[in-house]
Amino acid sequence: MKKGKIAFFVTGNADKYQEARIILSEPGISAAMLHLEISEIQADDIDRIAEASALEGAKKSKMPIFVEDAGLFIEALNGFPGPYSSYVYRTLGNQGILKLLKDVAKRNAYFFSVVAFCDSGKPYSLRCFNGKVNGRIALKERGRQGFGFDPIFEPSTKPTLTFAQMTPREKNKYSHRAKALRKFAAWYIQKHAKLNL
Amino acid sequence: MKKGKIAFFVTGNADKYQEARIILSEPGISAAMLHLEISEIQADDIDRIAEASALEGAKKSKMPIFVEDAGLFIEALNGFPGPYSSYVYRTLGNQGILKLLKDVAKRNAYFFSVVAFCDSGKPYSLRCFNGKVNGRIALKERGRQGFGFDPIFEPSTKPTLTFAQMTPREKNKYSHRAKALRKFAAWYIQKHAKLNL
Repeated sequence: MKKGKIAFFVTGNADKYQEARIILSEPGISAAMLHLEISEIQADDIDRIAEASALEGAKKSKMPIFVEDAGLFIEALNGFPGPYSSYVYRTLGNQGILKLLKDVAKRNAYFFSVVAFCDSGKPYSLRCFNGKVNGRIALKERGRQGFGFDPIFEPSTKPTLTFAQMTPREKNKYSHRAKALRKFAAWYIQKHAKLNL
Repeated sequence: MKKGKIAFFVTGNADKYQEARIILSEPGISAAMLHLEISEIQADDIDRIAEASALEGAKKSKMPIFVEDAGLFIEALNGFPGPYSSYVYRTLGNQGILKLLKDVAKRNAYFFSVVAFCDSGKPYSLRCFNGKVNGRIALKERGRQGFGFDPIFEPSTKPTLTFAQMTPREKNKYSHRAKALRKFAAWYIQKHAKLNL
């Protein structure tokens, strides 16, 4: 595998970018943050949102780019906040979610991430990669690392800690985003290897 | 003013259509319900969502059409559920909102509606009309008429009743949607009068 590949990550979220940068650096991909105004669509399906954003990103930048979209799906709340996790985090925050789950015993939830890559050639070609992590919503916020709903999410694979109690490196062992990004990275490296034969 | 004008309402919500049909019939406009798959964008601003939907509706149908988008904005929840009211209603329902406002004294809220009309000619031309109604979130659900968050919304102009305790005709005296639709209707009648000089 050759070193020195660059991948352009269209995002306005510096925390996401930091996570992606570390994960993609493992197989030798340099991630560059590209800030573009993208109009996300409303859909209950994160795959569709990510695909539409990637297509718009590639059209606007005229470059091959990728985006990442993720959501927290809480079983007792019929999947809420799901695709609207970022808006719900901004308005209700972790305390709002804890209030909605007050006296609720069934606290199962999962994080789901979709990485969508779009080539800039015509026709535009899309590839999606996803990652999921099962877990539970904690009884209260714990930890100060990570971002978003991390302080209230305990992954099943390490249920004693919330994501916010883990170092970035430890969170990347379990997280939905890391899983999706690693699938993307494997494919991206392969694709470049073929082009550089 | 001539009778017999038709306006095409792109919506998948039969309750909304029923409300609009009654309101628009007052000045002699027949509303027709047109069901199209429209991809709503994610934005904190309902005007932008409605405009984008109207444009897409006009492009897909190749006809002049209008759409209506509305949201419930709760002050103590930083405007939540706002533009995502329909998703939040489907997942959390009225009980979810009441749980979020448990022990909260400041229950101010407003409903906001935007009607966006788009002509099918090129260039596409857009017109927006809005309506707002101030009120409070009730302590519990009351009434079985209307739809969505109606059972928990008490308008300031008639605070003893929730929207769901009113007949459609009474709700239309106060509602955000009726206000926006009446503004649209006045303009639409005027526009047709000019064309038929």
